[in-house]
Amino acid sequence: MSAADLVAVLMSSYLHYDFGAPGDPRNDHLILSKGHASPLLYAAFKAAGAISDAEMLTFRKAGSKIEGHPTPVLPWVDVATGSLGQGLPIAVGVALAGKLLDRLPYRVWCLCGDSEMAEGSIWEAFEAAAFHSLSNLTAIVDVNRLGQTGETMHAWDLDLFAARASAFGWHPIEIDGHDVEAIDRAYAEAISIEDRPTVILARTEKGHGVAEVANKNGFHGKPLADPDAAIAELGGLRSLTVAVATPTGSNEPHRFPAGGELRLPTYEVGSKEATRKAYGDALIALGAVHGAIVALDGEVGNSTYSEEFASAFPERFIQCYIAEQQMVANAVGLQARGWRPFAATFAAFLSRAYDFVRMAAVSRADIVLVGSHAGVSIGEDGPSQMALEDIAALRAVFGSTVLYPSDPNQTAELLAQLVDRKGVVFMRTTREKLPVIYPPGERFEIGGSRVVRRTDADQVTLVGAGITLHEAIAAASMLAEEGIAARVIDCYSVKPIDAEALRAAARETSGIVTVEDHWSEGGLGDAVLEALAADADRPSVVKLAVRHMPGSATPAEQLALAGIDAAHIATAARDLVQESRG
Amino acid sequence: MSAADLVAVLMSSYLHYDFGAPGDPRNDHLILSKGHASPLLYAAFKAAGAISDAEMLTFRKAGSKIEGHPTPVLPWVDVATGSLGQGLPIAVGVALAGKLLDRLPYRVWCLCGDSEMAEGSIWEAFEAAAFHSLSNLTAIVDVNRLGQTGETMHAWDLDLFAARASAFGWHPIEIDGHDVEAIDRAYAEAISIEDRPTVILARTEKGHGVAEVANKNGFHGKPLADPDAAIAELGGLRSLTVAVATPTGSNEPHRFPAGGELRLPTYEVGSKEATRKAYGDALIALGAVHGAIVALDGEVGNSTYSEEFASAFPERFIQCYIAEQQMVANAVGLQARGWRPFAATFAAFLSRAYDFVRMAAVSRADIVLVGSHAGVSIGEDGPSQMALEDIAALRAVFGSTVLYPSDPNQTAELLAQLVDRKGVVFMRTTREKLPVIYPPGERFEIGGSRVVRRTDADQVTLVGAGITLHEAIAAASMLAEEGIAARVIDCYSVKPIDAEALRAAARETSGIVTVEDHWSEGGLGDAVLEALAADADRPSVVKLAVRHMPGSATPAEQLALAGIDAAHIATAARDLVQESRG
Repeated sequence: MSAADLVAVLMSSYLHYDFGAPGDPRNDHLILSKGHASPLLYAAFKAAGAISDAEMLTFRKAGSKIEGHPTPVLPWVDVATGSLGQGLPIAVGVALAGKLLDRLPYRVWCLCGDSEMAEGSIWEAFEAAAFHSLSNLTAIVDVNRLGQTGETMHAWDLDLFAARASAFGWHPIEIDGHDVEAIDRAYAEAISIEDRPTVILARTEKGHGVAEVANKNGFHGKPLADPDAAIAELGGLRSLTVAVATPTGSNEPHRFPAGGELRLPTYEVGSKEATRKAYGDALIALGAVHGAIVALDGEVGNSTYSEEFASAFPERFIQCYIAEQQMVANAVGLQARGWRPFAATFAAFLSRAYDFVRMAAVSRADIVLVGSHAGVSIGEDGPSQMALEDIAALRAVFGSTVLYPSDPNQTAELLAQLVDRKGVVFMRTTREKLPVIYPPGERFEIGGSRVVRRTDADQVTLVGAGITLHEAIAAASMLAEEGIAARVIDCYSVKPIDAEALRAAARETSGIVTVEDHWSEGGLGDAVLEALAADADRPSVVKLAVRHMPGSATPAEQLALAGIDAAHIATAARDLVQESRG
Repeated sequence: MSAADLVAVLMSSYLHYDFGAPGDPRNDHLILSKGHASPLLYAAFKAAGAISDAEMLTFRKAGSKIEGHPTPVLPWVDVATGSLGQGLPIAVGVALAGKLLDRLPYRVWCLCGDSEMAEGSIWEAFEAAAFHSLSNLTAIVDVNRLGQTGETMHAWDLDLFAARASAFGWHPIEIDGHDVEAIDRAYAEAISIEDRPTVILARTEKGHGVAEVANKNGFHGKPLADPDAAIAELGGLRSLTVAVATPTGSNEPHRFPAGGELRLPTYEVGSKEATRKAYGDALIALGAVHGAIVALDGEVGNSTYSEEFASAFPERFIQCYIAEQQMVANAVGLQARGWRPFAATFAAFLSRAYDFVRMAAVSRADIVLVGSHAGVSIGEDGPSQMALEDIAALRAVFGSTVLYPSDPNQTAELLAQLVDRKGVVFMRTTREKLPVIYPPGERFEIGGSRVVRRTDADQVTLVGAGITLHEAIAAASMLAEEGIAARVIDCYSVKPIDAEALRAAARETSGIVTVEDHWSEGGLGDAVLEALAADADRPSVVKLAVRHMPGSATPAEQLALAGIDAAHIATAARDLVQESRG
């Protein structure tokens, strides 16, 4: 109710949107950052003729697309909102797509609440939008003074918000959010500003128009005591329709030159290379063939090797600086316009954007996240830089794919398959150079695995991925010298995992040792256990993982101190074999 | 090298710190938000006589306390840094402790990098510090223009940072960061400002003093080509000592009146109450006895029931508004000064602060996080508000405790044990009212479980926690009518988990069904599997968990749609029993 006037004027006079063709690339984008105002959004859709009265009445009911907070199950919703402070950052991503990639004149309108201005992510968005001079973006802040539990920090102090917006490089406009002429003028002014984004700071009343609740605390998310009286007070039952202007002009987004045969980088078996380097190398190859690929990085491109793509395709690289939430939001915004984002930083720092990744899944977003510098094996920099919870966190994202390649050629092969992979994808790369064990061109399925060592009479199975696969291979050699035959499985696809190969190992050997450069919870070991959960006759599974807080040390020392190097794997395997004999 | 002059003047003339008594409550706090500048911090400690030459030479070596990034294994380090944008938010927490709780005149000095000014969390900190008028906080921004890969967004534009700081309510001072007299004046000015925090914006040169690298890109984190020449250029080998002033005045922090006998709230068996309400009720009881308890909330206190504590002990409640990163940072800062923070929001929104939680573990911080509104059972609000990955994420935090109580009396009992629990603790509470099944006063151990239903001849085991325990109990009743005896285990302690009880169930019954209101990865089911991993003869474990993206629906509908209600549990158990017979 506080933002109804703002949305009404927008719909009737400024939005360009073809509700019959939500995929039209010329459409404007309306993003409801304050997702709890979903009834307003749905009312706007109804006024535009997109939603029927009957569908409107399914609000918050099972099976309805008219959910408590908007999600893209509705075709006019780009992204899910409801976790505050995410709509504006994603709107920045969409506006970036419009300006830098699509190169179409569509506008992005984002309705924010005043409570969410306290989220740091909002200021990451302000920073990014101004840095890229996104004049195609208009934020509308519904300053209704009241949060869920009481007054916000700044109540109706529009001047304060305006000073901040100016300092962040935006053009601020202060208005009375219930004065429709002022609203109209503000939108016209926003469109006229050509060098920077605009924020409309609208002083509004929560519950405007219904005296029982207007500008009163204590009614957030609560039904009205007397809805009929409120409707009467608002002017009675009406069924307004709004003729929303449809977009005009070219409907051809810009396309970058690309095509030809994919020529992935190759690495010679027996040489060494880091999988993070293979990521950088392979992404260039993919970028040459697929014009929709866009790379993003959190100002560590010389570590993640995103810098290679940035050099090769500067127009399709977005430097996100040290703002991981905005980086993921950019990715979500870009994919909403059909671009294919690959966003990289240290895997540890993806944890900074975890809520954005969680919500990306609710948005049914297709994004690839690449995290380098995983695990204790990064060495001396210490635990702040080590991702040790990343696999657990990313496995627990709905519909996600989690890959942890063990070899540079394999990294390139898997990356090529990610170009059209649905959902949130996480690829974990390794800082250290790893031995190349697979020849170029070998095929690796997502959801598959590779048995890298086996005999006809394996006694024990070692399961590794990434850097620990190489420790497992070394352990198998040590065990072979003692007369113990160990199967070694490369579980490069952690989710989905190759349950078939694991079940075969469970049947055919007398124990499994999993080894991971990750905390013991939620990682590779747990993925293996889950795959075998329903099998009653599986052998013992011993999980080797990081169980003490690391400090500084060389990579080899770290692996030994964490108990995940070849020697520890061999010991665990030896014990298992002896137990099964005993 | 860019910030050496800033730190030298601070140490010699402004810092009050007794390096021989790092626990002295009167000490100032020096927090290195740009943790990668650790050599500077260690050099300062050496100059203060706290670290020997020999220890200095252990930098980044195995077993050294002089790690790549600072951690509290050094007694003069309050908190770990190295994930950018976290030091300043935590410094705000320490300054809050000084002003609101300890009520001592110590100052908090925080050295920030300019790259990290892009993190939204920095602006959450600016917001919170100004809101609380933290004149005891001084941020020093080392504006050296260069990030890891190149120039920052704003290079040496000090005016821009000053405008932002002013707009956020801070007092900015712009200086040449290599002019020691200007630095001295700036610190003096900072101390003189009594109504707001101060930020010193220092224009500096990266690599200052060594022409080979000074103000040049491409040398971030790289050793010098000719260190001897650099030392000569800097004036030759010197071993400076600085007499750091020790603090004076009262060393008695403020203490809040508290004590007496603990009188936890009680709930009558057979009645219903939500565990989130029990959290609110019990926290008041604990607050009355323990004066060190401080409650924090992310502006949802009427949902988490933190509002009860806020009413009872307003001086020990910190409203953090919609800024979850700052909320967790406040908690980490408060505990660094010996306070006992309990921080609550929707469990889904704790994901916003995941990097802060990860780093809290590196900081060896003792904090309690309480997440309400977990799982699909919140009902109509939809997936943006549902925590479905929280257990996975929090289990994968080093040294964490994860509790998911199933009953209000149990919630109160467990909460009482958290007052002195070490490490990061997560308690997941439930939105819906749950039947009270345990009498008041019953003892529940962390790491324990409760068999709530058993016979002498249980055929199958049902494992639940929180809301799913009650579905499991209902399923057991359904199964009993069919002649199937089901044991029901309440696994309220997810980490540590009661492996003993689970092993007994594995031995004594022919299958285990785990059921959780959480994605299938990393939650209760995986915790059960991990507990039984090394057991070769365990029966089948069937994991019931949320496997499809929910929409809106009533709580009961949601449980049914997710396949985690009593009927689905009974079906899974029935199938297991039939399989084991077959």
